[in-house]
Amino acid sequence: MAHTAPNESARNHAGKSSPRYELLTLGDELLLGLTANSHLTWIGSELGRRGVQLARNVTIDDKAEVIAAQFRESWGKADIIITTGGLGPTCDDNTREAVAQVLGQKLVFDPAIEQAIADRFAKFGRKMVPTANNRKQAFKFERGEVLPNANGTAPGLWVEQDGRVLVMLPGPPNELRPMFTEQVLPRLAARGLLTTGEAYVQIRTAGVGESLLETRFQPIFDRYPDLGIAYCAHLGQVDCRISSPDGRYEMDVLQNVAQECATLLGEDFVCFGHANMVKVVADRLREQGRTLAVAEACTGGLLANSFTDTCGASKFFQGGVVSYSNESKMLFLDCPECLLSQHGAVSPECAVAMASGVAEQLGADYGLSITGFAGPTGGAGENPVGTIYIGLHAPGGDWTKKLTYPGPRCAVKERAVTAAIDWLRREVVKESQKAAAPLAN
Amino acid sequence: MAHTAPNESARNHAGKSSPRYELLTLGDELLLGLTANSHLTWIGSELGRRGVQLARNVTIDDKAEVIAAQFRESWGKADIIITTGGLGPTCDDNTREAVAQVLGQKLVFDPAIEQAIADRFAKFGRKMVPTANNRKQAFKFERGEVLPNANGTAPGLWVEQDGRVLVMLPGPPNELRPMFTEQVLPRLAARGLLTTGEAYVQIRTAGVGESLLETRFQPIFDRYPDLGIAYCAHLGQVDCRISSPDGRYEMDVLQNVAQECATLLGEDFVCFGHANMVKVVADRLREQGRTLAVAEACTGGLLANSFTDTCGASKFFQGGVVSYSNESKMLFLDCPECLLSQHGAVSPECAVAMASGVAEQLGADYGLSITGFAGPTGGAGENPVGTIYIGLHAPGGDWTKKLTYPGPRCAVKERAVTAAIDWLRREVVKESQKAAAPLAN
Repeated sequence: MAHTAPNESARNHAGKSSPRYELLTLGDELLLGLTANSHLTWIGSELGRRGVQLARNVTIDDKAEVIAAQFRESWGKADIIITTGGLGPTCDDNTREAVAQVLGQKLVFDPAIEQAIADRFAKFGRKMVPTANNRKQAFKFERGEVLPNANGTAPGLWVEQDGRVLVMLPGPPNELRPMFTEQVLPRLAARGLLTTGEAYVQIRTAGVGESLLETRFQPIFDRYPDLGIAYCAHLGQVDCRISSPDGRYEMDVLQNVAQECATLLGEDFVCFGHANMVKVVADRLREQGRTLAVAEACTGGLLANSFTDTCGASKFFQGGVVSYSNESKMLFLDCPECLLSQHGAVSPECAVAMASGVAEQLGADYGLSITGFAGPTGGAGENPVGTIYIGLHAPGGDWTKKLTYPGPRCAVKERAVTAAIDWLRREVVKESQKAAAPLAN
Repeated sequence: MAHTAPNESARNHAGKSSPRYELLTLGDELLLGLTANSHLTWIGSELGRRGVQLARNVTIDDKAEVIAAQFRESWGKADIIITTGGLGPTCDDNTREAVAQVLGQKLVFDPAIEQAIADRFAKFGRKMVPTANNRKQAFKFERGEVLPNANGTAPGLWVEQDGRVLVMLPGPPNELRPMFTEQVLPRLAARGLLTTGEAYVQIRTAGVGESLLETRFQPIFDRYPDLGIAYCAHLGQVDCRISSPDGRYEMDVLQNVAQECATLLGEDFVCFGHANMVKVVADRLREQGRTLAVAEACTGGLLANSFTDTCGASKFFQGGVVSYSNESKMLFLDCPECLLSQHGAVSPECAVAMASGVAEQLGADYGLSITGFAGPTGGAGENPVGTIYIGLHAPGGDWTKKLTYPGPRCAVKERAVTAAIDWLRREVVKESQKAAAPLAN
């Protein structure tokens, strides 16, 4: 697309400049911090998987003149502009009008859209009142297409003009996401504006820092000098993305390289792709027909909640106890009173007792426990705020480990839970490997 | 600030144009959707409380030429630019250099910054290696100030130039937030760029839709025609913000109006300000010296976690049970087997048994329970996916209620937890009122 200024575009393997994507997210609620900008996170990630990195995301309020000014500036720079929000029936939705003005297009009433909205109302036993606001949603650009909305009233809009693409999406995530996946991505792929499949192979790792990971992988990558390598660290995990920027390596080469990295890493390798650690543990437990129970003090339910966010958790997750008091540790987890009084509730002994206690009570194969001081108060001496003990009861034995995390209460909870799940993952994977190769033991 | 174009600025009560704030958030990880843009949410909300709405948030990657181009454009429009990220020691942190070039300033080495970094390393028992990367963090603008970083290495930077303010903040939230609250907000307030106190009175409500709330409040607001009124709905709650855009009403008038609204609402009123519902429940329970225990099935730990995110939760929270199986309901919660086999685990009877069971087991005054089908599977007939029963055991009796939520698993969990906490809030507040006015009963 010739209008892209050279200093604003990347180059892809064919030597053509890569198309420049901009995302415009509209809404006062974003600027006031009332709602997180989940559209950036979700669309950015969906595009990233298909080889595209957003060049820019601009968030503005939904006043018509503000939208017009920003859209004019972005339309002069970008190849593809995606807008979110501002298409609904409420009175501050001026987006269509402001954009039409910049495009030099007319808005035209589309009876088919109005009918689709009326049908949707009827489906829920309501009658559409033909107010100005409801009718407003039935306007489209005179030279553009309509993206039907299966989950709401306002449809999306698609315009190709001046060698550029404009995609306008409704704000509610449950309307936007299926529309983007089912309608927008295939259209963009058909026009060669992104890859049709995954653009890279991702290796998820845990327990190794970014720079150490780089050092460990380097001898492998040295043999493939034209690979694209990117590292991303988040929440105690590091992902490594392997791609072929100049198209020299086929996907199966990338997969072989990734497999070599995984083998080298051993148990620090979590999975390929985008699954989370809980998913890895859940899949292995279901494979093995094993079950899990958890007991947690300072993480207060976050550990149990991490497992129960997974669909089908009831297949392996037996339950959990949030034991905030010594009484509950004795009652539910059979922690001996003498152990609690001798060692205290924040101790390796208590962590092991909690893990084995909850497993025994619920008849689970694995028990995982967390006890500690999440802060901001509690803790002193050997066990200051941020001290965490994790307990693991597994078919092969019982263990405990101590960790220390600085930071605010919620961050300590989150890191403790990630560390506990990672430890369980390592044990569960080892069990799977034993089962797969019984003679090797 | 005279350079602000009229069509890009709001007007405040003195007839002066309000200063235009822009936020530049830097980082590939934001554009790739690896990390949520929490800086927008947090800074947007902190500024909103002080009467400022961000005019724009722009997210770009941290390549030097991209930063320079965007910063140049924003510096031509905004009165205050806040940047986040790109100040750390890693090699893609080119932010300082790119910005210095646009400002026409030199970067100068500041031995005091280097010393502060070395001191911080020493505090954690490490020695600072004077690499180029570590040294880079010790450079500041020749005409600018340093914002010391109490929680990390790279300090923030403050520049006043051309009648504008530039604030550069480090990316990690635990470094950025205290720096913004303790150093940046007071400086901005001292220059008249935001209000020193809260700019509005906020009324938090629950259980009333936005349009009904508007109808109920209107007779009150009709008596104060110059009030600024804004409604914001989120997660089943609606907030109403009352301000005085032309400065006609003093804060105590706003507070009186808000009090009148609260009285009118009765138990649908949650609190003034920004506290969450859990905080309201926690404060009342601590006041009353009462305790709470929870039992949950389909919400899987999220209910317990909501309470234990609050500092000092152990003062009132006795613990919780995540009972994913009938066995765990019998074992931990004393749910009778005949009840489970007659009515099933997703039933009003089971919800009540769970709530009273967990309260009795842990000796708590209140028991709160949730059972249901969060989806995507399970549920049929009278109790389809999305069916939730909440149970409440309180000093005054035991109750249950049924709710139905559409949507994906995590959304159902979240809405069920919010509804349960809201119900408990209403009971706990009633108990407080009884205690305060015993003769009126």
